[in-house]
Amino acid sequence: MAEIFEPHAIEKRSMEIITSELNGRTWPEPTFSVVRRCIHTSADFDYADNLRFSDKAVELGVKLLRSGANIVTDTMMAFSGINKNRLESYGGKAHCFIKDQDVIEEAKRRNCTRATVSMEKAAKLEGPVIFAIGNAPTALIRIAEMIEEGIMKPALVIGAPVGFVNVVESKEMIMKAGVPFIVPAGRKGGSNIAATICNAMLYYNGEIDEA
Amino acid sequence: MAEIFEPHAIEKRSMEIITSELNGRTWPEPTFSVVRRCIHTSADFDYADNLRFSDKAVELGVKLLRSGANIVTDTMMAFSGINKNRLESYGGKAHCFIKDQDVIEEAKRRNCTRATVSMEKAAKLEGPVIFAIGNAPTALIRIAEMIEEGIMKPALVIGAPVGFVNVVESKEMIMKAGVPFIVPAGRKGGSNIAATICNAMLYYNGEIDEA
Repeated sequence: MAEIFEPHAIEKRSMEIITSELNGRTWPEPTFSVVRRCIHTSADFDYADNLRFSDKAVELGVKLLRSGANIVTDTMMAFSGINKNRLESYGGKAHCFIKDQDVIEEAKRRNCTRATVSMEKAAKLEGPVIFAIGNAPTALIRIAEMIEEGIMKPALVIGAPVGFVNVVESKEMIMKAGVPFIVPAGRKGGSNIAATICNAMLYYNGEIDEA
Repeated sequence: MAEIFEPHAIEKRSMEIITSELNGRTWPEPTFSVVRRCIHTSADFDYADNLRFSDKAVELGVKLLRSGANIVTDTMMAFSGINKNRLESYGGKAHCFIKDQDVIEEAKRRNCTRATVSMEKAAKLEGPVIFAIGNAPTALIRIAEMIEEGIMKPALVIGAPVGFVNVVESKEMIMKAGVPFIVPAGRKGGSNIAATICNAMLYYNGEIDEA
């Protein structure tokens, strides 16, 4: 039995194991922090291969968060997983509209997903918004449509829905939408992955070069 | 672009794809529902290989939930992921004590994880309890210890912490603890997996044989 039980020591040791098992593969920081934390959250080294970043996306995310950007999630799970104390210490706020009564009713009326409607509600937020999508391809698709329609322009999109229907296509759409993105390409992702990408950026404490 | 956007149709089609890609591998129900839903939540077919069940664990879980058993999680993410409307319709309730002030203070004082202390708090609940552990090996270890010490006897343990330190060992401990279990062996798991195993049992609508 391993003898490590102190919370910070556990995390430190975990990151050392991940770095070691990556066999020398590395990324410039702060991107490496995101890659490592996705593997930490899933124990799945596929994230070393599937993560796609638009140019300097993680640097941008860190800067946005440090200057008080808000985060919108598609699920309560992703919302729950985000370190809201840290986020709020920078002045930002996390939102998830999926359980709002108006969203539920409109989705029923239109026979579409609540995720779609919740993104339309999020489009009305003021200030820079990071979208963290961990479940619903329909959320990601609606974001891409609203960008194309000129309805909104997200500061950054974490596009990490998981699954077998519409998921791969939705990620391809968002990567072509002309906005900064962090996306695990393919079927994998999840609310845990969307949240952990946010947290990796919130926890990163290094310098960020001014672009 | 796939043409399926209606929520129930998306889930139905996803399950068909998973079944098809399992290439004829199958499990008796309701176990198959759990296997399928773990893959659905992660897009990771490793769950077809790593899931371990004590004898008739899923049947037991379904029966427990239908008769109003409570669920205790180690994280707010797992708590958030559980369909609480469905759970409460059977008379059960979901609990997570990780953010309770008394838990936070005691963990600080003892320099152990909040997960450990939250399990000790959960041990005081009355009635049958399903533990759904998706993050903290220390939670699972404390459960195994309390079983051995005769402090409590969980009705079922979903042991799905994820990660690199203490995780594999904690799962081995719980599988030898003499209580019913559902465990993804190895490093993989997560709050999403713990929640989805609960939901698979909550959503299962077939008959359960009386043992």
